[in-house]
Amino acid sequence: MTWAQLDVRLAPRERGFHLVTDEVERAVPEIRELRVGLAHVFIRHSSASLTLNENTSRDVLRDFATWFDRAVPDGAPYWTHTLEGPDDMPAHVKAALLGSSLTLPIADGALALGTWQGIYLCEHRDHGGARTLTVTITGDR
Amino acid sequence: MTWAQLDVRLAPRERGFHLVTDEVERAVPEIRELRVGLAHVFIRHSSASLTLNENTSRDVLRDFATWFDRAVPDGAPYWTHTLEGPDDMPAHVKAALLGSSLTLPIADGALALGTWQGIYLCEHRDHGGARTLTVTITGDR
Amino acid sequence: MTWAQLDVRLAPRERGFHLVTDEVERAVPEIRELRVGLAHVFIRHSSASLTLNENTSRDVLRDFATWFDRAVPDGAPYWTHTLEGPDDMPAHVKAALLGSSLTLPIADGALALGTWQGIYLCEHRDHGGARTLTVTITGDR
Repeated sequence: MTWAQLDVRLAPRERGFHLVTDEVERAVPEIRELRVGLAHVFIRHSSASLTLNENTSRDVLRDFATWFDRAVPDGAPYWTHTLEGPDDMPAHVKAALLGSSLTLPIADGALALGTWQGIYLCEHRDHGGARTLTVTITGDR
Repeated sequence: MTWAQLDVRLAPRERGFHLVTDEVERAVPEIRELRVGLAHVFIRHSSASLTLNENTSRDVLRDFATWFDRAVPDGAPYWTHTLEGPDDMPAHVKAALLGSSLTLPIADGALALGTWQGIYLCEHRDHGGARTLTVTITGDR
Repeated sequence: MTWAQLDVRLAPRERGFHLVTDEVERAVPEIRELRVGLAHVFIRHSSASLTLNENTSRDVLRDFATWFDRAVPDGAPYWTHTLEGPDDMPAHVKAALLGSSLTLPIADGALALGTWQGIYLCEHRDHGGARTLTVTITGDR
C-alpha cells in the first residue's frame, strides 16, 4: 500500500478549455509503481475546474467554451457578485458545474483512461494566472 | 486492506437515462467483503456519463432527458465539431456536466446509498453501443 | 493505514446554497490523525447536493441560487414528474449537475482546500429537512 501526494503547478492559460493529461502524468511518476489504485486530481481554486473529455479535436475544446459562455454569461443583469469583474461570478458557476476534482483509476502503472479521454483544465477567468493541482495517489504495488 | 478492479460491460442502451445499480453491484461481489470502503465507478467514454439520482420513477428519467436535450441542443448553430453527427458535441457537453465517475461509500458489505439513490447510466449518443465501466474498490475487511 | 466512516446530520436549511465546511470538519476529528489521505463526503439524497466554491461572499451564494433557479425552473411545462411538487424535479436535475459527493485531499491533518474554497450544501427543495452525509476517510498516519 502506497500513498503519494504532491502539488502540480500549471502555467497560466488563456480562458477556455485545455488538455493537460501529459502534464499531470509526468508530474506524478509514482503512478508507474502501482498495479491497481486511484489518482485524485484536485484544483485548489473556485474559478477554474477539471473535467475529462474528448482528447483529439481542437474544435471540441472551442465548442465547450462557446456553450459554457452562453449558458453562464458574463455580465448578466442578475449577478450581484460583480466586485471582482464580469467574468468572476460566471467562473464560479462554471467551476461548480464541471467540478473541482477528478478521481481516475490506475491500472498496471498508468491512468486507466478510455481511448478518447483526456484531462481538461477549464480556465474560467480572463486572467486566471497559474493554477495549482493537488494530486493524491493510493494503491497496491 | 483490499483492492479489486474490474471492467463491467454494459449492454447498449438507447439515448437517455437508465438505472444500472443492480448491474454494477452484481458485477463486483468483492464489495460484500468490505466492512468500510469506497467504490469508484468510472466510465471510459466521453459521450456517456454517470450520475446518482432518484431510483423509482420512470418519469424522472424522462424529465432528465428532456432537460438535457433542451439545455444542450443537437444541431445548434454554434457547434463547430459536427463531423461525428449532430448528437456528438452535445453528448460531450452533457457528459462533462454530469461527470465520468462516481465515488460511493461502502458500509457493511454494500454500497451505502440513500434510500432513493440509484446509479444512472446517461447515454448521450443516438447509437452509443456498449459502454465499459472500470470499477475500483478499496477498503477494510 | 486508517479507515473511518460516520454519518453527519446537517440541520434543515432553507432552499439555497450554504457553507458547511466547519460542520463537516468538526464532525470528523479523525482527519487530524492523517499525514496524507482522502476524505469522501457523500450526501444520501437525490434532491440536495454538494459542491466546492467560494467561501467568503454571501452574494456568491445568492447568485448560485439565482442561476440554478433560472436554468432549471420550477413548474416548467416540460416536467412530467410533478407529483412531489413544482420544486422536486428541478431539485433532481440541479443535484445531478452539482453532484452528490466531494472527494477532498487530506494533508498534515487537515482538509487541503484552497484558500477560497469551502464546502457548499446545496438545498434544492423548499422544505428539504435535515440532510445526512456519510463521510469516509482513508490515509496514512
